[in-house]
Amino acid sequence: MENRTEIAELGEFGLIEHLTKNFEIQNASTVLSVGDDAAIIDHFGKQTVLSTDLLIEGIHFDLMYTPLKHLGYKSVMVNLSDIYAMNAYPTQITMSIGISNRFSLEALNEFYDGVYLACEKHGVDLVGGDTSSSNKGFIISVTAIGEVAPNQFVKRSTAQKGDLICVSGDLGGAFLALTLMEREKKIYLENPQIQPDLENESYIVSRLLKPEARKEIIDFFEKENIVPTSMMDVSDGISSEVLHLCKQSNLGCVLYEEKIPIAEESRKAAYKFGLDPTVCALNGGEDYELIFTLKQEDHDKIVLNEDISVIGYMTDISEGCHLLTKGGNRFPVTAQGWNAFQQ
Amino acid sequence: MENRTEIAELGEFGLIEHLTKNFEIQNASTVLSVGDDAAIIDHFGKQTVLSTDLLIEGIHFDLMYTPLKHLGYKSVMVNLSDIYAMNAYPTQITMSIGISNRFSLEALNEFYDGVYLACEKHGVDLVGGDTSSSNKGFIISVTAIGEVAPNQFVKRSTAQKGDLICVSGDLGGAFLALTLMEREKKIYLENPQIQPDLENESYIVSRLLKPEARKEIIDFFEKENIVPTSMMDVSDGISSEVLHLCKQSNLGCVLYEEKIPIAEESRKAAYKFGLDPTVCALNGGEDYELIFTLKQEDHDKIVLNEDISVIGYMTDISEGCHLLTKGGNRFPVTAQGWNAFQQ
Repeated sequence: MENRTEIAELGEFGLIEHLTKNFEIQNASTVLSVGDDAAIIDHFGKQTVLSTDLLIEGIHFDLMYTPLKHLGYKSVMVNLSDIYAMNAYPTQITMSIGISNRFSLEALNEFYDGVYLACEKHGVDLVGGDTSSSNKGFIISVTAIGEVAPNQFVKRSTAQKGDLICVSGDLGGAFLALTLMEREKKIYLENPQIQPDLENESYIVSRLLKPEARKEIIDFFEKENIVPTSMMDVSDGISSEVLHLCKQSNLGCVLYEEKIPIAEESRKAAYKFGLDPTVCALNGGEDYELIFTLKQEDHDKIVLNEDISVIGYMTDISEGCHLLTKGGNRFPVTAQGWNAFQQ
Repeated sequence: MENRTEIAELGEFGLIEHLTKNFEIQNASTVLSVGDDAAIIDHFGKQTVLSTDLLIEGIHFDLMYTPLKHLGYKSVMVNLSDIYAMNAYPTQITMSIGISNRFSLEALNEFYDGVYLACEKHGVDLVGGDTSSSNKGFIISVTAIGEVAPNQFVKRSTAQKGDLICVSGDLGGAFLALTLMEREKKIYLENPQIQPDLENESYIVSRLLKPEARKEIIDFFEKENIVPTSMMDVSDGISSEVLHLCKQSNLGCVLYEEKIPIAEESRKAAYKFGLDPTVCALNGGEDYELIFTLKQEDHDKIVLNEDISVIGYMTDISEGCHLLTKGGNRFPVTAQGWNAFQQ
């Protein structure tokens, strides 16, 4: 970066004005946006969907290998993902940030470029937020608002025995990229002359740094007149998520190892690191795919969609939660997903 | 505290379950609350109001003199205040927290006791949030949702020339309590044997540690059929806030020093610290009163309300923003309010 403008020169209100001046409102429901005590949203005839996330430097992201534009993009995406996971469409977000004075205005502009790109891509309006100095590194808090036709939202607790368990996209890539990044960071810290070796890893790296909330899956449901019986997004890993669906729906499940979708690039990366691709796909977080259950009679509607894999089915709670391996073994599914309190 | 339970024992989901299990839903509009990817809110026929705040330890609060229950209470109140400042009623909040492992479960329970009390008092439902570990002290992010009859919300930008400038309650108390607390903290750090001297200061201390969002003012407007022409809440100090109203409404103003409401307790505290009470009232933040403008013909409706003071009027922008002192002098109003970037 060639220029460095100190944030303090603008002050809080100048900063908010600067950061939000290029946002054009895209939703008719956005009645009043940034610049007042609160935003006003008009969701007449629809239900409002609300989700929030807190991202803390050193816990949720590492600025050493996360470009600010990607971080802005991802901060929005992980929230939009929660809205889609309700079978709803996001319409507005608020973005609050705490920043230390090592951040220049140019750095913040990069972050907001990513925020803007994510909003634009999903037709979402940035309608408010809070900016503050931070003596504690970079802190990001995003709240996403969405809308859904009355009572068309999909919860986690409403799966039925016999329902198919499905997942969108492929799994494990983000976790493998994180493993790669941590390895490269370690090498770099030991010897700053060595440049990171990310060649041929662009697929998994994009899974980590530029996740995409799965709007097209919700579009597909609408087009095909499908309402999943339960759904959530994959942030902690599917073994953890499927246990949530089972627990909240009071059911058990069977998963088939061979059905778990893993990209060829992820499989190669796993072997390179000496890891089991299935374990990475089950326990790796941050893929931001959707996991959902469907009535068996809906199977024909999804069979031609290559972006959806059926990975198992829901059982009676008495049968527990199991994975059937390619070798014919049966293991209990355990939640080994990412836990912010075990870091 | 006698017991200490480590947060890690519960894990993130256990923690959320624990912290939210006593919240009973109070609003029919709360269709789905904590425990899924997002909350569902039904505001049919009303507009949704949305505001958010980020509070960071060491910037916005000092745990040395802020009891956790008060902090929980205040974190909610400052957000509800933003909703009332739109002439709207809060209905739901989300609460996200980042906590270091020096926090025990018992400490968090205290914090949530305050959150719960504030929600109960204002009939608000806690519908979601995010909990995370933090390597950066205590971080709190609250988003408040409210509702308002279509187009009855009040912005900052719609004051008219000649409108009366009014403020609720009294001003400067929170700033004086902050001054007191910082002084006592300094004394304590120099000599831990000396106990804080807060005698006779309970009024100003409550203004700082237990602010009340001004629901009754909004109730009064509704009862008296008053719609302010502009409004905001007093978080940074009225000199800063009145400049916002003027700038956004493209107007100037005159304020009368003698009309600025200052409690006797605040006046005494100011003299004790060698401060000018008017300066404290103008520039001290965190009073969470409402500042608003009214058409002159509404004057009779408020004249009997002792909780509302008329402190000046809006003028043409060419006349600037001035304070007329008791001594007959005329000073420009300048924003010396609290700025998170100047700390």
